[in-house]
Amino acid sequence: MEEKVAVIMGSKSDWETMKHACAVLDELEISYEKKVVSAHRTPDLMFIFAEEAREKGIKVIIAGAGGAAHLPGMVAAKTTLPVIGVPVQSRALNGLDSLLSIVQMPGGVPVATVAIGKAGATNAGLLAAQILGTNDLEIAARLDKKRTQTMQEVLESSDELV
Amino acid sequence: MEEKVAVIMGSKSDWETMKHACAVLDELEISYEKKVVSAHRTPDLMFIFAEEAREKGIKVIIAGAGGAAHLPGMVAAKTTLPVIGVPVQSRALNGLDSLLSIVQMPGGVPVATVAIGKAGATNAGLLAAQILGTNDLEIAARLDKKRTQTMQEVLESSDELV
Amino acid sequence: MEEKVAVIMGSKSDWETMKHACAVLDELEISYEKKVVSAHRTPDLMFIFAEEAREKGIKVIIAGAGGAAHLPGMVAAKTTLPVIGVPVQSRALNGLDSLLSIVQMPGGVPVATVAIGKAGATNAGLLAAQILGTNDLEIAARLDKKRTQTMQEVLESSDELV
Amino acid sequence: MEEKVAVIMGSKSDWETMKHACAVLDELEISYEKKVVSAHRTPDLMFIFAEEAREKGIKVIIAGAGGAAHLPGMVAAKTTLPVIGVPVQSRALNGLDSLLSIVQMPGGVPVATVAIGKAGATNAGLLAAQILGTNDLEIAARLDKKRTQTMQEVLESSDELV
Amino acid sequence: MEEKVAVIMGSKSDWETMKHACAVLDELEISYEKKVVSAHRTPDLMFIFAEEAREKGIKVIIAGAGGAAHLPGMVAAKTTLPVIGVPVQSRALNGLDSLLSIVQMPGGVPVATVAIGKAGATNAGLLAAQILGTNDLEIAARLDKKRTQTMQEVLESSDELV
Amino acid sequence: MEEKVAVIMGSKSDWETMKHACAVLDELEISYEKKVVSAHRTPDLMFIFAEEAREKGIKVIIAGAGGAAHLPGMVAAKTTLPVIGVPVQSRALNGLDSLLSIVQMPGGVPVATVAIGKAGATNAGLLAAQILGTNDLEIAARLDKKRTQTMQEVLESSDELV
Amino acid sequence: MEEKVAVIMGSKSDWETMKHACAVLDELEISYEKKVVSAHRTPDLMFIFAEEAREKGIKVIIAGAGGAAHLPGMVAAKTTLPVIGVPVQSRALNGLDSLLSIVQMPGGVPVATVAIGKAGATNAGLLAAQILGTNDLEIAARLDKKRTQTMQEVLESSDELV
Amino acid sequence: MEEKVAVIMGSKSDWETMKHACAVLDELEISYEKKVVSAHRTPDLMFIFAEEAREKGIKVIIAGAGGAAHLPGMVAAKTTLPVIGVPVQSRALNGLDSLLSIVQMPGGVPVATVAIGKAGATNAGLLAAQILGTNDLEIAARLDKKRTQTMQEVLESSDELV
Repeated sequence: MEEKVAVIMGSKSDWETMKHACAVLDELEISYEKKVVSAHRTPDLMFIFAEEAREKGIKVIIAGAGGAAHLPGMVAAKTTLPVIGVPVQSRALNGLDSLLSIVQMPGGVPVATVAIGKAGATNAGLLAAQILGTNDLEIAARLDKKRTQTMQEVLESSDELV
Repeated sequence: MEEKVAVIMGSKSDWETMKHACAVLDELEISYEKKVVSAHRTPDLMFIFAEEAREKGIKVIIAGAGGAAHLPGMVAAKTTLPVIGVPVQSRALNGLDSLLSIVQMPGGVPVATVAIGKAGATNAGLLAAQILGTNDLEIAARLDKKRTQTMQEVLESSDELV
Repeated sequence: MEEKVAVIMGSKSDWETMKHACAVLDELEISYEKKVVSAHRTPDLMFIFAEEAREKGIKVIIAGAGGAAHLPGMVAAKTTLPVIGVPVQSRALNGLDSLLSIVQMPGGVPVATVAIGKAGATNAGLLAAQILGTNDLEIAARLDKKRTQTMQEVLESSDELV
Repeated sequence: MEEKVAVIMGSKSDWETMKHACAVLDELEISYEKKVVSAHRTPDLMFIFAEEAREKGIKVIIAGAGGAAHLPGMVAAKTTLPVIGVPVQSRALNGLDSLLSIVQMPGGVPVATVAIGKAGATNAGLLAAQILGTNDLEIAARLDKKRTQTMQEVLESSDELV
Repeated sequence: MEEKVAVIMGSKSDWETMKHACAVLDELEISYEKKVVSAHRTPDLMFIFAEEAREKGIKVIIAGAGGAAHLPGMVAAKTTLPVIGVPVQSRALNGLDSLLSIVQMPGGVPVATVAIGKAGATNAGLLAAQILGTNDLEIAARLDKKRTQTMQEVLESSDELV
Repeated sequence: MEEKVAVIMGSKSDWETMKHACAVLDELEISYEKKVVSAHRTPDLMFIFAEEAREKGIKVIIAGAGGAAHLPGMVAAKTTLPVIGVPVQSRALNGLDSLLSIVQMPGGVPVATVAIGKAGATNAGLLAAQILGTNDLEIAARLDKKRTQTMQEVLESSDELV
Repeated sequence: MEEKVAVIMGSKSDWETMKHACAVLDELEISYEKKVVSAHRTPDLMFIFAEEAREKGIKVIIAGAGGAAHLPGMVAAKTTLPVIGVPVQSRALNGLDSLLSIVQMPGGVPVATVAIGKAGATNAGLLAAQILGTNDLEIAARLDKKRTQTMQEVLESSDELV
Repeated sequence: MEEKVAVIMGSKSDWETMKHACAVLDELEISYEKKVVSAHRTPDLMFIFAEEAREKGIKVIIAGAGGAAHLPGMVAAKTTLPVIGVPVQSRALNGLDSLLSIVQMPGGVPVATVAIGKAGATNAGLLAAQILGTNDLEIAARLDKKRTQTMQEVLESSDELV
């Protein structure tokens, strides 16, 4: 099966966060490739990756990075595929630097930014599925089903408040 | 022509920002509806809007709001269509409150957040087009053309540094 | 005994914080209901809850949430009962996102916001009692008594500085 | 008619903000007294004011202040009436200092904090009315009517987006 | 020996920080009284303390508090003795709230603010000594001696970099 | 008359702020010298100034600076006289950088920090007077008189709320 | 004369800031090239520029950008020449986003970051000269002369405080 | 071998951070001296160090400090050698105070600021090497080699995502 989503991250240490994006894609049966691509340490690889993504059949790119997080924005500069940016929680500034570096893109090159850390990575997986779901009824149906399950879990959790 | 994008905003005063999203959609020949929908002042309308969006043929929702900006996240809670959130610059805190209220969504309900203010609104229009462009080759082509134009403008601007 | 206060929270994990609101209500002998109601995961339940609150006899609603904390503001949008918002401490941004998402409400829909975390939850319980105490002399008397006890504890603690 | 709400502020210059609280109270036909009471420059007056408030028939106190804004918290320390704190926008830090000085109260002494500036002052007036409305059906009815009007205004404003 | 410095704090839990102020005073042989005085929980005691301080012979007051830290500013409002404010590190916001609540005093009522936490408490002790030292040559001499010792320690520490 | 206070500032442009410290000293009839002394542009002059201050009869130093504001802390490193630091409001970060650069001194070298901008400069003048007033009954009496006047002004301002 | 410094900026609108770097280089008689190079809108040009810089004889690169400012860091990723980053003051967040996006680089790829805005641009010019001055005695001498002039100006400005 | 780089830090406790700068210099075979020099506790030593640095043959100074971090800026005020500032992560404010105190230098005295903490220290070592490498082909070659190694490590790490 051809991979429609690419999950990239600036460093192996971002995997602890980004695996939550992959877990959602697995759950929704969406195939993906995953890779360490560093804006600062492998810039040429990053450009090649971004240039080739569309022709490889990729439809959405999820990119996670921390600190002066340039990966999502630079990939977005090299493709017109939608790029989802996940701010990884940084050591000193708790991901505020990651968030601002990703979200404050100039007019012309958007990055679809999600929350800092694990919740953001989970939502990056869901957002990728929602984008695919605009033209794939099966994925849309799986998303609706997951929503219903989530709702059920909340309803049940109320009884556990003690 | 059926509208594929909805541009909503929490207050009429947000139009000054959100019109930049509409300008991009106009330029890329993507039809859209625009509307004031307030999370806090018209909550029921907001829910109805979100519930009916998919069946009306909407594929992407752009929602702008400022301060305790709940509109993008609440619309996202009521649909599995992709929702793009634009943090409108607020008076006291310059949009930092808008940004955090929109981007820090809990795992389960993503909002694709863009930059604060005008640049963000412009990018919201582009991101909507990029999402549609994952399955519409014509839109994808127009996006590529616009990128090339933007690049040309930058190249030429260098001569104007005096 | 009819419940006059409702304590709701966006997730079961908020209970660790919100139980301090309940402890105060217990101490002041004010009956309450408690429930997980999620703005993002159970939006319809939230609206029904808010719509029915006044007719059920509820007089004050305490709502706790973290991150892009939309629960207090959205409940406040659906009722004219006083809503007290408790910003739950978030992982990355320590509750600053929760605080701004709750307190920066637009003109028209107030949320009575208290401090981040445990102190805020405790004070939410007290504030609910103070609101009830504007017309219930017994509760007002219990509040005054509690104040005096608190004062005594401080006075005595001075001897323990070593 | 006996005044049920007191609107106090730390300095005459806060009136520009606090008059929006008074405007709401006027509109809802709730009588109030207004006064400059400074925590730092008239501390004894502040204590006397707070001590006498309940016996004078006051049921809710609205207190606005900026910078190291101690007025709401100190009044709250001297009464068990509900105190609503309005963070006035400060010159250097845009009201972030006012907000944190008011909202981050320790467990035991709550202040019901609203948004920075004009929106907060407006909401302080509404919140005071909502608190009175828990036992005054007429005020509750006026609040509901005002909500409906606000909703109508939003609905109509949508046609003005050009 | 008459006490020239008073070290007060808003809560017993602040002692962990404030003991560093006392350690400096002990080392410099400056007698002091120490006490828990809470702005919010013992407001009357605070006022009496501040009013009586000068006549008791106190020349400098050191006041530590956290969160919405009103103690230093309120004591300063009730005396024209110099008041040194120590922002105690708070749980959620790391003392930024404490710092802003203490330092951003309005024109008319100064608080001499020092750093957040332990370093600030140590410096509060030193600053009190420096103030006394403007008229007490013995204390001034002890301060100079301590400075020289501190310098020596730094010079020696350079050899320990391994 | 010998000058007991020195008012220094890092740049001529800080005078707009620092003149408010001088105005208070003038009003309280305290003689002072004023001077531009830049930590970064005249470092040797700064050290000489600090070294000679005590022997010249100076008892308190007020130092104002903006941005990476090193003047107050460096002067404090070269004297054991009390140094009052005034954070001048900076262009980009509104004085938050000035404040943190001045107040967050390490244990061993205190700076008595006041509020950002004009209010801080005014309070620096008052704090200098309060320090002198610990041993000068006349200055203490003038301070008390000024407090009473300030209180009167507040009381009268209440009638002007319209 | 061969150009030893390159001054690049992400957008023509950054020139208002970056011209201050050029003014310093002009004053110190250091030849330079200046150019608009956008990380996001001309990514390939940026890479070519960075790759060719050293062989063209460039020794220091000054790069200014605002918002999600990726230009300095990405150029630094493509060359081992020293890169000086100037955070341009952004509209909503006053350059805090620019600063964090530039300075918080991961280990391996440094950017020599200076202050936000005009002061930073001026200092970027000086820092470039200082780097060249490590091996060019003439430039080092000019820098020393400029320092002395600056010192003189400060000394004279003291007489203008009125 | 003559030392071309000096690594100084404000306190022995900064060594935990600053050793990462030394590790890079060791790896690149660049000799350096290391020393504790405190702006606040050994100000005269600091000035002598800065004045003598150039004549001793030092070409680049790396200075690390935390909190109100004045060391890099004050050394920069006393020499026209390039000074690299490393913001050490502080206890309460996570190094945001260190960063702003170092980077926000006024026009005239630049400090080349790097990231907060370990990554910044590593990059300070690299930046010093890059500055030396503008005239030392051997060092430039070693830097290029290290870049290639880093790139290899990233490429290989991608296989370890599990």
